[in-house]
Amino acid sequence: MELFVVNRNKDIADLSANYLFREITQRKNQFLQKNPDAKLINLGIGDTTQPLSSSVVDSFIKKAHALKTPEGYQGYGDDFGLLELRKQIASKLYNNRVDEADVFISDGAKCDLGRLQLLFDRTARITIQDPSYPVYIDTSLITGKNEIVYMSCSPENHFFKNLDELPSTDLIAICSPNNPTGAVLSHSQLKSLVDEAKRRKSVILFDAAYSNFIQDSSCPRSIYEIEGAKEVAIEINSFSKLAGFTGVRLGWSVVPKELTFNDGTSIQKDWIKIITTFFNGASNLAQQGGLACLSNDGLIHSKNTALYYLENAAALKQVFEQNGYKCYGGVNAPYLWIDLKGQKSWDVFDHFLTYAGLITTPGIGFGPSGEGFLRISAFAHKECVVEAVSRFENIFKKNKKEVYLTNF
Amino acid sequence: MELFVVNRNKDIADLSANYLFREITQRKNQFLQKNPDAKLINLGIGDTTQPLSSSVVDSFIKKAHALKTPEGYQGYGDDFGLLELRKQIASKLYNNRVDEADVFISDGAKCDLGRLQLLFDRTARITIQDPSYPVYIDTSLITGKNEIVYMSCSPENHFFKNLDELPSTDLIAICSPNNPTGAVLSHSQLKSLVDEAKRRKSVILFDAAYSNFIQDSSCPRSIYEIEGAKEVAIEINSFSKLAGFTGVRLGWSVVPKELTFNDGTSIQKDWIKIITTFFNGASNLAQQGGLACLSNDGLIHSKNTALYYLENAAALKQVFEQNGYKCYGGVNAPYLWIDLKGQKSWDVFDHFLTYAGLITTPGIGFGPSGEGFLRISAFAHKECVVEAVSRFENIFKKNKKEVYLTNF
Repeated sequence: MELFVVNRNKDIADLSANYLFREITQRKNQFLQKNPDAKLINLGIGDTTQPLSSSVVDSFIKKAHALKTPEGYQGYGDDFGLLELRKQIASKLYNNRVDEADVFISDGAKCDLGRLQLLFDRTARITIQDPSYPVYIDTSLITGKNEIVYMSCSPENHFFKNLDELPSTDLIAICSPNNPTGAVLSHSQLKSLVDEAKRRKSVILFDAAYSNFIQDSSCPRSIYEIEGAKEVAIEINSFSKLAGFTGVRLGWSVVPKELTFNDGTSIQKDWIKIITTFFNGASNLAQQGGLACLSNDGLIHSKNTALYYLENAAALKQVFEQNGYKCYGGVNAPYLWIDLKGQKSWDVFDHFLTYAGLITTPGIGFGPSGEGFLRISAFAHKECVVEAVSRFENIFKKNKKEVYLTNF
Repeated sequence: MELFVVNRNKDIADLSANYLFREITQRKNQFLQKNPDAKLINLGIGDTTQPLSSSVVDSFIKKAHALKTPEGYQGYGDDFGLLELRKQIASKLYNNRVDEADVFISDGAKCDLGRLQLLFDRTARITIQDPSYPVYIDTSLITGKNEIVYMSCSPENHFFKNLDELPSTDLIAICSPNNPTGAVLSHSQLKSLVDEAKRRKSVILFDAAYSNFIQDSSCPRSIYEIEGAKEVAIEINSFSKLAGFTGVRLGWSVVPKELTFNDGTSIQKDWIKIITTFFNGASNLAQQGGLACLSNDGLIHSKNTALYYLENAAALKQVFEQNGYKCYGGVNAPYLWIDLKGQKSWDVFDHFLTYAGLITTPGIGFGPSGEGFLRISAFAHKECVVEAVSRFENIFKKNKKEVYLTNF
């Protein structure tokens, strides 16, 4: 009898490990060993810090109470999420540009990105922005898609390339407002993207997870504001950055019924097969909270929370600009992308950690075009940002004076 | 310039659609159109019906309150889940047979089954029980594993085959207590499974989602009760059937550090890469509730709820046995597997729907070896079961008298 032995998924074996956040943690821990009293401030991770609204919490509590009663108890929910939540998303967030039947509730954008990869053949080629959120590349590779075209994004090209400058691919992953650069695509950039994708018969995976931060009313909050986008684009979004649900877990994807594969079959039909096989619904508590997020109160809270983080971004931007650094992002996005004037990302990261106890993210961690940049996250309590600004000022003025012990 | 067009994942295209639950819904709806006043009783789906315990709900509420305060707010949780929850699972459910570091919290067993498939190369062969929960087959096929060996399970072989009767495969998916047959593997069956997997260097995917129903103290509740299992087995489990969390969403997998691929690399290491790429943690509310499930109160509630469903199973079993049908399962599992004495699954399904307004699940929907059987789920309110028993009795006695209008 033939003996088998278990093979790794060779696409994981081939994956070059992305050590970014592990490396940051290691350097942080080394620093803390030497300086156990240091008061670190984390401007590295893109994680929300502001409390949930009362109406959202009341909604959780109401649902929790119901679950302990025979009448209110609920088992598995609808496969695609609460119908009322899908309706509210379609009407409140898309102004009914999309049909509620095309909205699929999930446990978050990252999880949907992974599942969406399963829709497409492993021979599919994919365009990914450079720099980018590492999950696009990793989920592509692990699902066997190793032909990746990189769209190099820099200040010189306003963080976008027209597709006609790039080889054609089956899939195009685009994130706007962008993580890490904070760049937001204009209506005309998005229109050129949609038109060219249509010509090429490519599918766009449009990650709009930061759309709530867009202040510039001329910039679309959804790709479906572009005519014809439903024929070429899937949109991914989430309550994480919209309502502080990073830990609560709730998101959605829009997979329009208009989308088809090259054989004419429906992409949405396969999506339904994927989510009913690889997923079992978002938590009913989270979904109930999501409904409250989309109430008038909830939406005002979201708007105010976005403004809170954007004020952080503005304060951080100011201190860099006043000291001669060019800063991108931070206006329609919670991330600043700082041009380090020729310095290496990791060198500046180390400098800020060592002399100011500030954790940032080296741009190189998001791809080769990120070298020479630093990402600074505005997700932080205001008092931390005030202290961080003061430490940056100290560093810029006095250079190398250790300022990381200040309490705040 | 070359033009691309988007290919379906051909493994989905090749998938023969499993119409089981859609077909059940269609037949149910047709019946309701003709009989709009019928009071249907659903013994089809394996979905919990009994309320959550007060301590679990209190735990949700406490967490919800915390999330609206600056001190209590929490963003992303630990990648592998709350450490305290992993500890409690290792100690309370595994008697510390597994290390807390090998326990990975998830949003449910089905989702983990899908992600686990990504660990293994698409060339991997997999053994799957027939009949079985359709997700094993579908997640195998969608991730490119189309060499499936079926382990035919019937009353004749006590719903288990020794592996030496089957060709060797890289992976072996086993569910005990079994969905749909309700069979539970004995210590000696599990030992032979582990020993033979070890000889063959196969990895067992052991689905223990119904372990809480095991009453027979000689039957292992975990595969890790078998010596050496950590070298060959991954175990999947969930709070869905343990604590009624089908809608709340919380599960876990045990991926022991002892497991390796054929190249000697660590399976756990790749698993960490998979879950940090394709997942972003279970809801913090669900995790907090999970902790309460593992308190003494919570565990007593779980035990009592399992007994409640098993009393339902016993009542249903009795009516079938008294009328000359052989029934399997229902003692250590919430499912009854009824031998239809040569009748076809769908015929009997239709008969019970038409003349008694009872929804069951045709065994054929779980695989070819399920033909001639019916799965009856004991997940229901007791009063529904009492009424269902009475309708079954009527059907058996008077045959074809329509009894589906009775209120209950």
